[in-house]
Amino acid sequence: MSVDIDPVLEDCRSSIDNIDAALVHLLAERFKITKRVGEHKAKVGFAPSDPDREAVQIARLRNLAAESGLDPVFSEKFLRFIVDEVIQHHKLA
Amino acid sequence: MSVDIDPVLEDCRSSIDNIDAALVHLLAERFKITKRVGEHKAKVGFAPSDPDREAVQIARLRNLAAESGLDPVFSEKFLRFIVDEVIQHHKLA
Repeated sequence: MSVDIDPVLEDCRSSIDNIDAALVHLLAERFKITKRVGEHKAKVGFAPSDPDREAVQIARLRNLAAESGLDPVFSEKFLRFIVDEVIQHHKLA
Repeated sequence: MSVDIDPVLEDCRSSIDNIDAALVHLLAERFKITKRVGEHKAKVGFAPSDPDREAVQIARLRNLAAESGLDPVFSEKFLRFIVDEVIQHHKLA
């Protein structure tokens, strides 16, 4: 059977596409909020990064990952990937 | 004012935390499905990766990103990050 007409694959791929659309929309919303955070911190005079806050976020995400069957190591890598992008945008802005 | 009691920051951080929890749960679900895809492909004899499908996914996500105000370049980086993790898990499995 061809990849294009395999019903199991087609069903899975349509779920993956739905999830990816949701992920993109959530990420768009997250970046809107971190942009606001960055502007507010600059205005008020807070440091751009906050290692204590990041440590709390990582611990929380690792727990949520474990509960939902996601690899906790990946959840931490994922948060770092997102935070790096936020920092990159601050530098470019 | 301290970072800990700034109401604007507190409000933004609580939204970021909600979004991150949603992201983790969606990613957990996505990996469940890609695991099923990997097992099915192995059983049926399809190649593990499908560059044509990936090209379609990237084009679609870039469009969704542009519509939702997310940097399309980031959406592509994001998909690559996720797909690399899927491939990594296949290798480890």
